Amino acid sequence: MRDFSQQEMAERNYIFDTIKSVFRTFGYAQIETPSMENLSTLLGKYGDEGDKLLFRVLNSGDPFTGVDFGAFRSEDGVYNAPLLSKQLCDKGLRYDLTVPFARYVVQHQNEISFPFKRFQIQPVWRADRPQKGRYREFYQCDVDVIGSRSQLNELELVQIVDAVFGKLGIRVALKINNRKVLTGLAEICGAPDKVVDITVAIDKLDKIGLEAVLAEIREKGLSDSAIAVVEQILALSGSVTEKLVAMRSLFGGASASGIVSETGLRGLDELEELFGLISAAGVSVPVEMDLSLARGLNYYTGAIFEVKALDWEIGSISGGGRYDNLTGIFGLPDMSGVGISFGADRIYDVLKGLDKFPAGLRSTTTLLFANMGAEEVRYVLPVAAALRSRGISVEIYPESSKLKKQFDHCDRKSIPFLSICGADEAAAGTVQIKNLASGEQRVFAKDDLDGIVCFLGK
Amino acid sequence: MRDFSQQEMAERNYIFDTIKSVFRTFGYAQIETPSMENLSTLLGKYGDEGDKLLFRVLNSGDPFTGVDFGAFRSEDGVYNAPLLSKQLCDKGLRYDLTVPFARYVVQHQNEISFPFKRFQIQPVWRADRPQKGRYREFYQCDVDVIGSRSQLNELELVQIVDAVFGKLGIRVALKINNRKVLTGLAEICGAPDKVVDITVAIDKLDKIGLEAVLAEIREKGLSDSAIAVVEQILALSGSVTEKLVAMRSLFGGASASGIVSETGLRGLDELEELFGLISAAGVSVPVEMDLSLARGLNYYTGAIFEVKALDWEIGSISGGGRYDNLTGIFGLPDMSGVGISFGADRIYDVLKGLDKFPAGLRSTTTLLFANMGAEEVRYVLPVAAALRSRGISVEIYPESSKLKKQFDHCDRKSIPFLSICGADEAAAGTVQIKNLASGEQRVFAKDDLDGIVCFLGK
Repeated sequence: MRDFSQQEMAERNYIFDTIKSVFRTFGYAQIETPSMENLSTLLGKYGDEGDKLLFRVLNSGDPFTGVDFGAFRSEDGVYNAPLLSKQLCDKGLRYDLTVPFARYVVQHQNEISFPFKRFQIQPVWRADRPQKGRYREFYQCDVDVIGSRSQLNELELVQIVDAVFGKLGIRVALKINNRKVLTGLAEICGAPDKVVDITVAIDKLDKIGLEAVLAEIREKGLSDSAIAVVEQILALSGSVTEKLVAMRSLFGGASASGIVSETGLRGLDELEELFGLISAAGVSVPVEMDLSLARGLNYYTGAIFEVKALDWEIGSISGGGRYDNLTGIFGLPDMSGVGISFGADRIYDVLKGLDKFPAGLRSTTTLLFANMGAEEVRYVLPVAAALRSRGISVEIYPESSKLKKQFDHCDRKSIPFLSICGADEAAAGTVQIKNLASGEQRVFAKDDLDGIVCFLGK
Repeated sequence: MRDFSQQEMAERNYIFDTIKSVFRTFGYAQIETPSMENLSTLLGKYGDEGDKLLFRVLNSGDPFTGVDFGAFRSEDGVYNAPLLSKQLCDKGLRYDLTVPFARYVVQHQNEISFPFKRFQIQPVWRADRPQKGRYREFYQCDVDVIGSRSQLNELELVQIVDAVFGKLGIRVALKINNRKVLTGLAEICGAPDKVVDITVAIDKLDKIGLEAVLAEIREKGLSDSAIAVVEQILALSGSVTEKLVAMRSLFGGASASGIVSETGLRGLDELEELFGLISAAGVSVPVEMDLSLARGLNYYTGAIFEVKALDWEIGSISGGGRYDNLTGIFGLPDMSGVGISFGADRIYDVLKGLDKFPAGLRSTTTLLFANMGAEEVRYVLPVAAALRSRGISVEIYPESSKLKKQFDHCDRKSIPFLSICGADEAAAGTVQIKNLASGEQRVFAKDDLDGIVCFLGK
């Protein structure tokens, strides 16, 4: 886990503030949920691997007395860690923002006005083995709308991606797929239960080539006609519209298997509507339809999104999709939602790598008053206070150290203006200020705040 | 632990943003530390009671196999919970921001430029019994400067308190004491080891009266001459300057005991300097010297601060002090620091109670475009996009529901402007917008963004 220095916080806040400002222009508002949730809320939501990665919080007081430890121990002395830890821990740390959001929506359904547009920016914790670019504590920035099936919501997420990365100055490509199309593909292959196998294989096309993809699908037990269907799909080319027309024909019964997929056709309807909306709204980011995009296969039910940086190799920096049944597990059925998550750490790495952070994020203080002694400090105190009340960041060096040391302080903190007011200035009622970059030096009457503020460029 | 709704987050962000903006005008910059620290960092820093309130995080994987549970069990079947949990947990959740800050300063001492001015706003966790106004997860807002003994730092904290509560519109009183003065008082009582007993008793003066205070001190085993000294101190009255003069005489040997306290005199020097600086700088908040103020007796070594709201009964809403040896426990001696912590939850309660939150915090969306059908939506999409790119918060209702339902959405979300663009507007190339509060309705050419922005009051 990481400390964040003042420099890093300035950079991270720049990312968060940019993302938040975009979310807000689309009418999304922030919520927060507690760091700890009941383990019963978290367990079983992220697969077996996820359950292992949950941080569990030991019950407070004495959680041990009364527990029959022997009952959790096998003959060879190994404990059943999942069961025993359930005994000792009622709470776990948030693993993502989606499950707490679902719990929130169900719990507060009577206070919420639907469609409910919320964003949430909080840390999550995973007991992963730490490695480069993967942390045990990291922030997620999630934006979701729940309670509406309209593709206008998908469009908004596309526009949000466009605006966020436009503002950050990161060139990205946005890939879109639809889970129903993947289902349809498996259906017209005659293997509706093999949707994951087929998709995972197709996803490798660029890396391993057509023959290897088909071989992998064959290995998974698909028939020759199924393989012929996959070949037909992979051979599709042309514009989004052309691909949609061709897919519609295949899902309509024209594929090698002759099978019709109603689900697949509904997925194509959704994609067609979304791409139509995207072109009506006009976005800058290149948007591709990518039939091999396969994230979140276990929970997404409609659109699937993924964003990649074009100029920096790092995997996806944002992703999301539509889930028709997120709140069902907590007892509120038929709540369709769609959302997208921004990976703050990866976005940070891209901005650092491309040197795209704006200049001047670091400088927090505009003006340093040198400390020339107790009397001189008392003279500048009201001037400093007046400037601060105008929102200007001002420091007075706390010790009457040698000027060299006070200069160094400006340098290390990148403070652009220095004022040295000694007995002469105090006697004359003036304030002398130097622009350390240009060397320009000016003298102001001590109550000429407008003049000083103007010289400071504020 | 609590969920925070969109309304509550708007109010909480208003508090945090106000506090941050003030911190920044004094040149303080933000850091963050991880939610989990090594238990070895946390244990023993908050007293026995604090150790019990630490949340411990179970080691991941299998923390049980190989542990000899029997060794932690007494004959009557009770486990030694502190020792056994140390075996199972290496990490604990942050209990405050001060100890992680001390650890941070020591760990990063070579990257930090001193005096180091940092603020930190993060949640902390305590396994307290939940009760009204006390939570297991709550935010602290800490501002500290470390590496300077100058009283100018204390002054800045006073100015920060003044500015924060001034901006928030909460009338407060700031009480100041000095730990060295309390030490001096115990010394001239001839009972240097009884500083806590004496101070705790004095602190009750208002509640229980002079006789009861003196009786309590007598019970603690103080001599008659000590009690006479306490009486002399409690009889002091007048201005800060008058009190300081009288105290100086008592600490100089003129008390009933005749004992001189060098430490006490140094404390008076510090108070005198600080009050001199406060009057030179000019602050609005009433600042009292309160010799009975006794928070943080175990760690503060100089100034002690406490802020109380004048118009709302809630205990202290901010407090802090100077600690000369905070980083010593982590191996970096002689680092003096001074800081103050703002209690966001109590400040929230005061603002709620006094109804002092500014109006309009809740409204997140400025304009809703009603959804009059697929074609009409496509017509307004570029207008909405253009307004958003000017920073205006715009929603398009996602479903083409009945207008009544869309009106209700404006109402529930306090959206002040509604645009209904149907086929007529699309044909004419216009946009119609209604101010829902005043009823005023205007029609704009769809590319007259300046006109629209102006009508929206942005």
